[in-house]
Amino acid sequence: METYKHKVHYYETDKMGITHHSNYVRWMEEARVDYLDKIGWNFARLESMGIVSPVTGINVSYKAPSTFDEEITIYTSIAEFKGVKLKIRYNMVNSEGKTVCEAFSEHCFMNLQGGFIRFKKDFPELYEAFTSRVEGDEVNE
Amino acid sequence: METYKHKVHYYETDKMGITHHSNYVRWMEEARVDYLDKIGWNFARLESMGIVSPVTGINVSYKAPSTFDEEITIYTSIAEFKGVKLKIRYNMVNSEGKTVCEAFSEHCFMNLQGGFIRFKKDFPELYEAFTSRVEGDEVNE
Amino acid sequence: METYKHKVHYYETDKMGITHHSNYVRWMEEARVDYLDKIGWNFARLESMGIVSPVTGINVSYKAPSTFDEEITIYTSIAEFKGVKLKIRYNMVNSEGKTVCEAFSEHCFMNLQGGFIRFKKDFPELYEAFTSRVEGDEVNE
Amino acid sequence: METYKHKVHYYETDKMGITHHSNYVRWMEEARVDYLDKIGWNFARLESMGIVSPVTGINVSYKAPSTFDEEITIYTSIAEFKGVKLKIRYNMVNSEGKTVCEAFSEHCFMNLQGGFIRFKKDFPELYEAFTSRVEGDEVNE
Repeated sequence: METYKHKVHYYETDKMGITHHSNYVRWMEEARVDYLDKIGWNFARLESMGIVSPVTGINVSYKAPSTFDEEITIYTSIAEFKGVKLKIRYNMVNSEGKTVCEAFSEHCFMNLQGGFIRFKKDFPELYEAFTSRVEGDEVNE
Repeated sequence: METYKHKVHYYETDKMGITHHSNYVRWMEEARVDYLDKIGWNFARLESMGIVSPVTGINVSYKAPSTFDEEITIYTSIAEFKGVKLKIRYNMVNSEGKTVCEAFSEHCFMNLQGGFIRFKKDFPELYEAFTSRVEGDEVNE
Repeated sequence: METYKHKVHYYETDKMGITHHSNYVRWMEEARVDYLDKIGWNFARLESMGIVSPVTGINVSYKAPSTFDEEITIYTSIAEFKGVKLKIRYNMVNSEGKTVCEAFSEHCFMNLQGGFIRFKKDFPELYEAFTSRVEGDEVNE
Repeated sequence: METYKHKVHYYETDKMGITHHSNYVRWMEEARVDYLDKIGWNFARLESMGIVSPVTGINVSYKAPSTFDEEITIYTSIAEFKGVKLKIRYNMVNSEGKTVCEAFSEHCFMNLQGGFIRFKKDFPELYEAFTSRVEGDEVNE
């Protein structure tokens, strides 16, 4: 699990006075970029290996509102990894320790020709990096 | 079911050359606002009745990319309505008839004091408006 | 002059209850894309000719607030065109005829190698298209 | 002058492969919020004093592109302060020391009734805070 912090910007609020729900999806990306960087497999490295990794799905549960200037801590972990599909979990907590949002994103991995990559065969090191970090139990709690 | 059209803006694309995935969440809101307007229960009317309706969850499946200047047609319908929880379905299709995104959003209904409203008792007309429009079969297909 | 309409989205408001000022910059792009399309020189055509046209500057005056669900009419015109620099003017008016925003954007024109294009010599038709549409007087009013 | 850092997010890029120009306007706000916080007059404090401060204009010059994962340093200073109008300057520099964007924003100060505040009379401490920080010479360079 890795930790990323995001301070809510004024432009991320809406007329209800709280963070607009679409922004949490962007924070998921921020936290994911940070996570991959911290485990040594950032976007630049993947790209240099000819790997692109589009988002195939997201699932977001809004638990409590947040608003301008609050610092949100995002705990990011790998929930599932099954060869071609990576599922990442995000737990977003405010400064009082209250969960404001729980979310998942799913990703596949393709080569520049648009085909799925053969993980184990062509990128064994990356396969191991993801496999060894699956934190499934936590997800099932 | 109601139909809403969104033309992809340049600022909605990302460096992969396609629509950034977070924007589909914003289009869901555009389509929802349009839907409620078309069935006669727009935000202004709900607000004037003292009802606020936050998003409690979203679920988005990205099926195919879209990009700048494409016109996306969004078919919006009520998938479920159970008294306090409304589930809306969005089917987003490009100009060739290909589904680019399938999504759901969930909403609850609260009064200005932050309590859940008693739909049947206090807002029977709105209760009927939603109940009569549930298109569950389509969802289960 | 061409006319473009934008209805303010919920996600474009901020906690002050009004449209966040950054969104007007995005509407300028929407109106510009629409303008170029209407005069027959849209982005796809420019791209196919090997022309890219980055924004080099913007100047925005906020005259009055706008908010969710308001329809804003944007009057777009060419304020100046001097061979390599195009200046576009935007006048944004609400449904009551009140100006909410006046703005300008500046653009240069480059080839795919990053050099400035020679407008008159290499693209005389485009040069004429812009030159003939300069509406300077209006700008000076 | 105060210093703020922003790392370019993936969702801030566009299909040209660079930061979309509208995002610099949002970074200006981030830097401004940080500036006011650092000089002891953050939004919360102003609000508690019954002061709102809308943006009345912006002026942005794009000098060089930036893109995903670059760290941009924003130097923020007060360029002008004339009783009711505050002009803030932003100088945005990439990690190689190259200026990518130079910008100004203008702000007025109003009370909750929508009238202009009388700075010297009603908020002498804030008046002094801004006046003492005007860095005009730098602006004129």
